[in-house]
Amino acid sequence: MIKQAAYAVEPWCVREQRLNLDMLAQSESVFALSNGHVGLRGNLDEGEPHGLPGTYLNSVYELRPLPYAEAGYGYPESGQTIINVTNGKLFRLLVNDEPFDVRYGELRSHERLLDLRAGTLTRKAEWTSPADDTVRVSSVRLVSLVQRAVAAICYEVEAVDQPVRIVVQSELVANESLPTAGKDPRAAASLEAPLVAEECVGTDQSVVMVHCTRESGLRVGAAMGHEIDSPDGAIDTEVRDDVGRVTVATRLEPGQRLRIIKYLAYGWSSQRSRPALHDQVIAALAAAKLTGWEGLLREQREYLDDFWAGADVEVDGDAEVQQAVRFALFHVLQAGARGERRPISAKGLTGPGYDGHTFWDTESFVLPVLTYTQPRAVADALRWRHSTLDNARARARQLGLEGAAFPWRTIQGDECSGYWPAGTAAFHIGADIAYAVVRYLSATGDEAFARDYGLELLVETARLWRSLGHHDAHGRFRIDGVTGPDEYSALADNNVYTNLMAQRNLQAAADLAERHPEQAEQLGVTDEETASWRDAAADMYIPYDRRLHVHPQSEGFTEHAPWDFESTGADQYPLMLNFPYFDIYRKQVVKQADLVLAMHLRGDAFTPEQKARNFAYYEALTVRDSSLSACTQAVMAAETGHLDLAHDYLGEAALMDLDDLEHNTRDGLHIASLAGAWTALVAGLGGMRVEDDTLGFTPRLPGGITRLAFRLRYRGRRLKVTVTAHQAVYELLDGDPLEITHDGERVPLDGGAVSRPVTPPPIRPTPTQPRGRVPRHRGE
Amino acid sequence: MIKQAAYAVEPWCVREQRLNLDMLAQSESVFALSNGHVGLRGNLDEGEPHGLPGTYLNSVYELRPLPYAEAGYGYPESGQTIINVTNGKLFRLLVNDEPFDVRYGELRSHERLLDLRAGTLTRKAEWTSPADDTVRVSSVRLVSLVQRAVAAICYEVEAVDQPVRIVVQSELVANESLPTAGKDPRAAASLEAPLVAEECVGTDQSVVMVHCTRESGLRVGAAMGHEIDSPDGAIDTEVRDDVGRVTVATRLEPGQRLRIIKYLAYGWSSQRSRPALHDQVIAALAAAKLTGWEGLLREQREYLDDFWAGADVEVDGDAEVQQAVRFALFHVLQAGARGERRPISAKGLTGPGYDGHTFWDTESFVLPVLTYTQPRAVADALRWRHSTLDNARARARQLGLEGAAFPWRTIQGDECSGYWPAGTAAFHIGADIAYAVVRYLSATGDEAFARDYGLELLVETARLWRSLGHHDAHGRFRIDGVTGPDEYSALADNNVYTNLMAQRNLQAAADLAERHPEQAEQLGVTDEETASWRDAAADMYIPYDRRLHVHPQSEGFTEHAPWDFESTGADQYPLMLNFPYFDIYRKQVVKQADLVLAMHLRGDAFTPEQKARNFAYYEALTVRDSSLSACTQAVMAAETGHLDLAHDYLGEAALMDLDDLEHNTRDGLHIASLAGAWTALVAGLGGMRVEDDTLGFTPRLPGGITRLAFRLRYRGRRLKVTVTAHQAVYELLDGDPLEITHDGERVPLDGGAVSRPVTPPPIRPTPTQPRGRVPRHRGE
Repeated sequence: MIKQAAYAVEPWCVREQRLNLDMLAQSESVFALSNGHVGLRGNLDEGEPHGLPGTYLNSVYELRPLPYAEAGYGYPESGQTIINVTNGKLFRLLVNDEPFDVRYGELRSHERLLDLRAGTLTRKAEWTSPADDTVRVSSVRLVSLVQRAVAAICYEVEAVDQPVRIVVQSELVANESLPTAGKDPRAAASLEAPLVAEECVGTDQSVVMVHCTRESGLRVGAAMGHEIDSPDGAIDTEVRDDVGRVTVATRLEPGQRLRIIKYLAYGWSSQRSRPALHDQVIAALAAAKLTGWEGLLREQREYLDDFWAGADVEVDGDAEVQQAVRFALFHVLQAGARGERRPISAKGLTGPGYDGHTFWDTESFVLPVLTYTQPRAVADALRWRHSTLDNARARARQLGLEGAAFPWRTIQGDECSGYWPAGTAAFHIGADIAYAVVRYLSATGDEAFARDYGLELLVETARLWRSLGHHDAHGRFRIDGVTGPDEYSALADNNVYTNLMAQRNLQAAADLAERHPEQAEQLGVTDEETASWRDAAADMYIPYDRRLHVHPQSEGFTEHAPWDFESTGADQYPLMLNFPYFDIYRKQVVKQADLVLAMHLRGDAFTPEQKARNFAYYEALTVRDSSLSACTQAVMAAETGHLDLAHDYLGEAALMDLDDLEHNTRDGLHIASLAGAWTALVAGLGGMRVEDDTLGFTPRLPGGITRLAFRLRYRGRRLKVTVTAHQAVYELLDGDPLEITHDGERVPLDGGAVSRPVTPPPIRPTPTQPRGRVPRHRGE
Repeated sequence: MIKQAAYAVEPWCVREQRLNLDMLAQSESVFALSNGHVGLRGNLDEGEPHGLPGTYLNSVYELRPLPYAEAGYGYPESGQTIINVTNGKLFRLLVNDEPFDVRYGELRSHERLLDLRAGTLTRKAEWTSPADDTVRVSSVRLVSLVQRAVAAICYEVEAVDQPVRIVVQSELVANESLPTAGKDPRAAASLEAPLVAEECVGTDQSVVMVHCTRESGLRVGAAMGHEIDSPDGAIDTEVRDDVGRVTVATRLEPGQRLRIIKYLAYGWSSQRSRPALHDQVIAALAAAKLTGWEGLLREQREYLDDFWAGADVEVDGDAEVQQAVRFALFHVLQAGARGERRPISAKGLTGPGYDGHTFWDTESFVLPVLTYTQPRAVADALRWRHSTLDNARARARQLGLEGAAFPWRTIQGDECSGYWPAGTAAFHIGADIAYAVVRYLSATGDEAFARDYGLELLVETARLWRSLGHHDAHGRFRIDGVTGPDEYSALADNNVYTNLMAQRNLQAAADLAERHPEQAEQLGVTDEETASWRDAAADMYIPYDRRLHVHPQSEGFTEHAPWDFESTGADQYPLMLNFPYFDIYRKQVVKQADLVLAMHLRGDAFTPEQKARNFAYYEALTVRDSSLSACTQAVMAAETGHLDLAHDYLGEAALMDLDDLEHNTRDGLHIASLAGAWTALVAGLGGMRVEDDTLGFTPRLPGGITRLAFRLRYRGRRLKVTVTAHQAVYELLDGDPLEITHDGERVPLDGGAVSRPVTPPPIRPTPTQPRGRVPRHRGE
């Protein structure tokens, strides 16, 4: 587990001041660089030691069979697993006769720094070899947010007190051997040597490799080129069997430096030929070289300056959260910036966890952040979903349903879940996607997207709901036998979250079809069909327990036995690794916000009193064995007036990876939880909601935070909201005048800052959590 | 599919008058011989052609890994699969230069006959070889019901019109190659060459082989010996690599015969040494030889005469059912006769289907028949369950429960189900076992069994229920999240069958503990504990739908959407092979009697009017995709007055395998459905029930059956009940006087025949079945 002391608390960077080999794998995830297309884990330049070597290209996967002890109709037979592609990060260094390896000799100093404004990972080491020769090694690494195919590294070696012979081997290596995965089913299936060489050529300090995956038939191109600034010496280029190597040999006097700029270019395709891919990557390399190292650094900073200008969040009073939320926003940006019609996966491109799959996390946790900070990435991600509609329609047909059944987990669009009660049955993903469309349209007014992509997504998901549910004898529209967000319940009737989200999906589809009648007609939508959607939405059954005056998460939930929290030890979490699903499913225990998430996303469906009662009821049952919970609990804790608790949950969401709270950051970052840190601040403490197409805020701060300021992009404008203990200030940074709401009151914005008083929350008893599951307290 | 015309309709045998190679595998199951310890499929003597070669020893299995696409806590990692052991049935025959193979030359006649009184399989063939030489071949095969380890075959060859050179090779062969299994998950996993040779020796027409399984470490011994009556010629014995062979070469003149008696002996052990097992099988062989062929035939008939004297069922008016019920009783006897603390599996020892596993079928469908016809076999089968209590207790602990959680499917006692929603969650198996104990005790008064075995089984299952359920805020005892008998629903709350069976389990455990206080104390049972069982039983929640006036199968069931039977084609059954579980589970569609089975086994919990309404309601939803349904529907159809429908379901249960109604008789017989034929006749048309420890009958015949007579064993007595259209006659064949009931009225029996009038049933509208699922009509 990463102790937070591992990283210094600074507002704009994550700095590791000494190397801890026990947490190497975790730090590789934390220091991963990506632009959503190419991802490099923060492996040491010299390759070893490593936790998990990782170089990823979005959607480059291999197929693997999904086995079943007892097969069933409609079970996916084949899964997809992200693979470690050709590694271009490697620099092997020989100092006199000793390989530079931090496990030997003496590491006098070692610092790594992820700069959230520069978009670079910097490393500085001073090392004395076992033979007593001392060198300074430094590297600066970036994955370009501007040039999608490009990464670059500036690598330097300096002799300190003695002249040394130096040999640097800059490599491009395919089919690296990987440590085998543990027994945790969340870890990725290990796939050995997935790449078959088609071409490996090198000349003049440049190497190009083209490989093909065995089963999935994807072609991957990688190229490296160099600029070498060396006192003198020899340079050699060789290529052999999955290894391309440029070797620089020289002799350095004390204070003298060898500097190598390495440019990397990647590309992949399921269709393009070997020569086409070869040409594509050397072209990208040429563009990178033309830009040059300094140019790449400059472009990177400009891109990020622009991002932060519309996305930065300032938190005064909690320096850890200040750092963590910027770290979170940086990684959310990295995951989605240049995805461009490829999915944003649960781990981004930071590790092989969950096989590199994309879940509902994307639409429900990641896209809400990008919608208000980098909306173009949202349109791209939803266009990717749209591109998988044929797969989802085929899946719906296979399941006997109309419309589109999107996969619970996938890379390429087909269902890859091998456990249907927590996969296929979680139909809410359709409504989550639909809601992401509605949210994006509301925040951008992008009618071209609505017409060309959004409408079809809404129509096909609405069709799914209409065929999945049915009217009962009382005229209620029921959705039976599905699994909601909480993975500690399954196959229940009338999950409130699912039904409320389906209701909005059906309404929104009917409304958008009405707004785009021609496109709706092309999709075969008739007035009878939209009427049947509106009818189902109006009749949607939302169970309510009149005895307890709370909403059951699903029908019957509140009749079930409560989990025996008193007898459950701290070492028995997460419960799913220590108790059988059968017992977990049938008792009142909640893995992650479900009804509470419904209250956030469909706040209009609950009274304030219901929200308060429901929140308290589910607080006592929610164990947060999922990283997709704390952020939502923060939002509803804030709304129901429990501001210190909201602060605590905010901290948990924000520090998920910097503190390695779930002990699996090694497999990649929890992108959705990181995104949730923003949501906890902006929707939680900032109280941001969009109702009736109007952006509104009900901001309130806990005692531990003295000032919160955040920037948003909204309908072509930039806004800044600043909250202190008693006052909220709204500023329109650019764009046309806009009306927002503060605490439900309309506030016109047309340039200058407008301030409004913060109203104190109602006072209610503080909810309690299950024994041992109280979040870490962050207040004074 | 076997058309019934395949077998002549005769009252006491199953005769196949010509060989149909397309149904060879099915006929191998129909003609299987077994005594519950050793099982031989009805393979042709010469081994080829075959459907599935099969020689089984009860509980000789191999382990195989159970794979999961996504693993979970408590999932079994290893499964057990019955294996084909050393085959001693083989006689290869060479006629001049031509091997006797029914696929070549001309098969002039071929008859096989299973004699249900003699307990033998007889075969007679006349064959002309491609070289135009004609021989008559006959064999008589038996698996001794008296000598557990022994089988024997009398094989004869006769020259017809020309002198012929004859060579017969009588073989013992291990690791036969098997045809690979299809994609149907119900078929067995194919395990290649599971036996490792430890000893293969032969001398003087005898061969002994000892093998060991690779993973499960079971040692299997097999031996053969011969008596050869040959005109002259040479006899040779050789053994090599898993093959032992006794070769007889001779020349036959027309009319002259070669006759070979082959004795086989089998044994196995998980503990005994190679020499011990060697000695055990040659000792069994010696005993068989001492008895001699004629002696074995005589013993077999005596054993069966005794069985039929207490078990025979006569059916006048429906000759097919007459034959089928005797065929059924014969196979039920074969499955359980000499199991002796080994399980009775779903297929008996007739084939590899369901991996040779034992399910709840045994206690719920097979043991009820044996309880009243061969009660000693019931005590043995329940002693086997008792011997697995440690496994079941360990499983309960693993699942976080008290008492014993018996496995859904197993050979040796550990859970082998790889799909927990239809395996582990089907906790009703505990109550099914408990009920089998109660039924056995009530029918035999075997207090020694109650004290030494029954009490512990009841106590440990009661403890399971007490820990599985909980009292809710209304004081009701609920059992949530379990799966009832109907495999087209899963993980529901308060399944009526489960709750009613658990209720009886809890009551019976408390009552028996009260009767055997010392033994109860040894088991740690306190008065507080029995009080808590009685309390839970009294508070048991039985949901009822007041709108429809029916019992929902489980809570909420009647609110679910009905299955769309109108759009479901005949080729889409069984539904589980054509629709996803998620959709099947959440709709009103029933695979097999569930609530209807509850009405049979817990008739006391329903009023006659409820029974009628419930029966009609579930008739319209039940598709009978399981062979465990028709017999129960027959029973409740009869009770609710639908006698023709009862007759139709009786026919379906009885003819399951002779007509191959589920197209999988090839993998083994449906022992529970065969047992159900008896239940349909005796509990259905005979109206037999035991209430308040009194045996009672409410007999009524459908128009198509003119007379029904059945014999029973009950508390050390034999009874005969004869029913005609208007009269029932009760006879006490031996034993002390007894009081029974007829139509609820007490009837004393003390020797002579007592007759009572049959009352006509109430007239109610005939229930309907789902489209295309009406049972075949059997009436006039």
